[in-house]
Amino acid sequence: MANLSKLTQRNEFICAAGVAAAGLLLAISKYSREQRRKNLRPEDKIEYFISEKKDTKRVKAHVNAKFFKQLRFLLGILVPRKLSAETLLLVGIAASLILRSVSDIWMIQNATIIESSIITMNHQKFRTSLWKFLAAMPAIAVVNNVLKWSIGELKIRFRTNLSKYLFDQYLKNYTYYKMSNLDNRIANADQLLTTDIDKFCESTVDLYSNTCKPLLDVFIYIYRTTSTIGPKTPLIIMMYLLFSGVALTHLRRPTGNLTIQEQKLEGEYRFVNSRLITNSEEVAFYQGNSREKLTILASFNKLTAHLRKFLEFRVGMGVVDNLVAKYIATGVGFYAVSLPFFDKSNKLLQDNNDGERLRHYYTFGRMLVKLAEAIGRLVLAGREMSRLAGFTTRMDELIKVLNELNDGKYERTMVNNSSSADMEIAVGKGIISFQDNIIRFDKVPLVTPNGDILVKELTFEVQSGTNVLVCGPNGCGKSSLFRILGELWPTWGGKIVKPPRGKLFYIPQRPYMTLGTLRD
Amino acid sequence: MANLSKLTQRNEFICAAGVAAAGLLLAISKYSREQRRKNLRPEDKIEYFISEKKDTKRVKAHVNAKFFKQLRFLLGILVPRKLSAETLLLVGIAASLILRSVSDIWMIQNATIIESSIITMNHQKFRTSLWKFLAAMPAIAVVNNVLKWSIGELKIRFRTNLSKYLFDQYLKNYTYYKMSNLDNRIANADQLLTTDIDKFCESTVDLYSNTCKPLLDVFIYIYRTTSTIGPKTPLIIMMYLLFSGVALTHLRRPTGNLTIQEQKLEGEYRFVNSRLITNSEEVAFYQGNSREKLTILASFNKLTAHLRKFLEFRVGMGVVDNLVAKYIATGVGFYAVSLPFFDKSNKLLQDNNDGERLRHYYTFGRMLVKLAEAIGRLVLAGREMSRLAGFTTRMDELIKVLNELNDGKYERTMVNNSSSADMEIAVGKGIISFQDNIIRFDKVPLVTPNGDILVKELTFEVQSGTNVLVCGPNGCGKSSLFRILGELWPTWGGKIVKPPRGKLFYIPQRPYMTLGTLRD
Repeated sequence: MANLSKLTQRNEFICAAGVAAAGLLLAISKYSREQRRKNLRPEDKIEYFISEKKDTKRVKAHVNAKFFKQLRFLLGILVPRKLSAETLLLVGIAASLILRSVSDIWMIQNATIIESSIITMNHQKFRTSLWKFLAAMPAIAVVNNVLKWSIGELKIRFRTNLSKYLFDQYLKNYTYYKMSNLDNRIANADQLLTTDIDKFCESTVDLYSNTCKPLLDVFIYIYRTTSTIGPKTPLIIMMYLLFSGVALTHLRRPTGNLTIQEQKLEGEYRFVNSRLITNSEEVAFYQGNSREKLTILASFNKLTAHLRKFLEFRVGMGVVDNLVAKYIATGVGFYAVSLPFFDKSNKLLQDNNDGERLRHYYTFGRMLVKLAEAIGRLVLAGREMSRLAGFTTRMDELIKVLNELNDGKYERTMVNNSSSADMEIAVGKGIISFQDNIIRFDKVPLVTPNGDILVKELTFEVQSGTNVLVCGPNGCGKSSLFRILGELWPTWGGKIVKPPRGKLFYIPQRPYMTLGTLRD
Repeated sequence: MANLSKLTQRNEFICAAGVAAAGLLLAISKYSREQRRKNLRPEDKIEYFISEKKDTKRVKAHVNAKFFKQLRFLLGILVPRKLSAETLLLVGIAASLILRSVSDIWMIQNATIIESSIITMNHQKFRTSLWKFLAAMPAIAVVNNVLKWSIGELKIRFRTNLSKYLFDQYLKNYTYYKMSNLDNRIANADQLLTTDIDKFCESTVDLYSNTCKPLLDVFIYIYRTTSTIGPKTPLIIMMYLLFSGVALTHLRRPTGNLTIQEQKLEGEYRFVNSRLITNSEEVAFYQGNSREKLTILASFNKLTAHLRKFLEFRVGMGVVDNLVAKYIATGVGFYAVSLPFFDKSNKLLQDNNDGERLRHYYTFGRMLVKLAEAIGRLVLAGREMSRLAGFTTRMDELIKVLNELNDGKYERTMVNNSSSADMEIAVGKGIISFQDNIIRFDKVPLVTPNGDILVKELTFEVQSGTNVLVCGPNGCGKSSLFRILGELWPTWGGKIVKPPRGKLFYIPQRPYMTLGTLRD
């Protein structure tokens, strides 16, 4: 162990070790590449083709004026009144954030006092500052957790407000039916109403707390450090962060594509495996196991080859990342902090003894670390913003569709638009009037929401007390007749006279029971 | 700002702020609870019942002798030979880990030298040590990334070895068919063969690297600190970590259940939403939207009530957690480190000047932080171990089933065992002999793998060149006849004479094409 510690003292040893390691890395990489070339196995020759599903091109969400307009509208739903529990919580979060920044500064100052008292062996000072620290602890812990509670409670309240608003729209009249059966803009209403609302609210609250605190911190720490050790130190650090941030983001760009490629290949590998299970009887009859094995191994080799490539990219990036974001950053930090200490004109630092300088050094050093952290968090908040833009667009789309459906407008990709265009019929052109004990259709066409005409004109009358049997082959319009009678489908023309909604009772084709007991 | 900094100096202010915050917390919590009681909405009265799926009770994996035996067997597959690329990588990882610990120590020592040279304003020393630091950087970055590469490459190699081994077993004869059609022990072979293999290999390698390094670190840092500042300091820190670890683990126990409950309620909420979409036509006919709305809101309220409860638990735990794991831990750390500095008998620290003591203080302080981190990582490795035990059990089960299927043994929950028990037939009792140009069945029963007897005895002979039409109603055993002829199903009795496997050609009922082009 003593030997080891001596070794670590010698810079040359570390250098030599690093160079040796780099050599080893190159050697192994070359060896494995050669091996790969040499052992060309039969499965490497297999080529197969799996048709790729093309992603339906989504409208990409951008952070722009439209986004802020949408967000403002949604915030109106989230915070219903100027003076509500939600505004109280928003103010509470801001207050807790300020208190937390204040306690951070206090903690830094007190910690350095404790440390300098240990080093200068001032027992008295050590004891008082340690007790101070212990006394302040509960308060700081409570501040942290009041913040946590406010954020959590605000998320729940936002989710409640938005959910209630949307359910009011969604369950008005037949909107829920229209959304899934007549309109095809929103395919997954349940996903939007449960998970996406949650994510939108979470993202909104997180963005609020994740931008407020770093902004406050950047302001406080720049002010504190500049006012005592001059503007040079924070300036150098911020410049370096800016430069390294831009450079690393640029270098890291291929990662996204490589990840997508990896997921695609993993999916393909999974697919050839499950395909074998679904078709196992056919494969067994054809004795196709050796061929299937080659396909699976080929897919596996494609996957591992990609994983190797990705690993090599990540390791290469890792070296740059380590150097730029960790080691050189530390070096720059040391250099920037040392400047005022070696500056003869700095009165505060030159006139003091070592103990005082130590206190200043660690106070400012830690503040600069906090500054760097705050800047990093602001960068992340930028990314969070575009994530929020995505959720906001989805929520906005949902609200738009709900409003239009409530107004009777709906969109659908028509299969054959021409057939209905010839006729003098259109969505909502039919007239419905209500009268008890009679059902009368007067020149009513039976048209599906797609625009397919099943019956051009239907005229009949049924008086109360008459039994009528409607029969015909599949697809002739029996169910459609009832869907139009039940006002589920829009009427495209003619006149309908029927009892009002509540007075006509339908028994649907499929059995259906509400959840719950009969007593309710 | 000056005001603010003065305020932060005053301990009383922090205390008062904390108490005020705590008061606020209580007030808000009481207010919201009262509000909840007051506003009893109609949806709160709704009760509904969703039948719960009972989880099939899995055999829980434990870390015991059996696990180590299974793991040892699997390691034999992962590392095929004593001297292979895999062993080289294992050694390489160990070497990189040692080099990393050495560089950590060197970094700590060099950083404190730089810091003390800044504080004592020794410009010469500052410059040399900063250059030393910059010179060592590339080596350290390379060591870190050689480690990363070795771990990644080892994972890929392990996965390749295990996958190849399993595919050899799986695609031998008709094992893949038997696994999904005759045996019901493994339902998701594709999941096991793709994702679970990957997770098993990742878990194995991670466990190796995540236990080696902390063990080494604990050993190094305890030795280094004990030999210079005495055993008291590390002992106090380790005792506190042990105590707080046990206490916090005990307090955090309800978290698991609360999370499960949350997921259950989120699932229920999602279910009532998607249920409305599937049954939208029926609900629309019955005019059931207001009832459905109540059900959805009731489910949502149940969810938010639980989320609130969970949040309150987490906030309460957060206060304790902050105090025990962060603030008191820091206090104990300060106290423990201060002991040797205030100890008059410690020659090393008493005889030096402030600059030297500073260097010692930060060197040992940082080593103790690393020690605490290493202990924390060992605790996590314990959890990782039980995760690995789960994957190991699954892999072991798969290999066991594969071996048994290759030997012709299979297990299935028999529907009616009695019917076949009466007869003198059993799995594999039939005799198959091979002869060209003839198919002869001699008293062969047609029995499904479940043990259902379709035909008690079947005796017929088909010469080459004869056309035979096999017909009959559904379920009479037409396909079964061919499955037995194709050796997919086991023969339960009698004698079969047929051409060898490759010479008989079957066209299965469903179309099937291999992936790839005709040229292959």
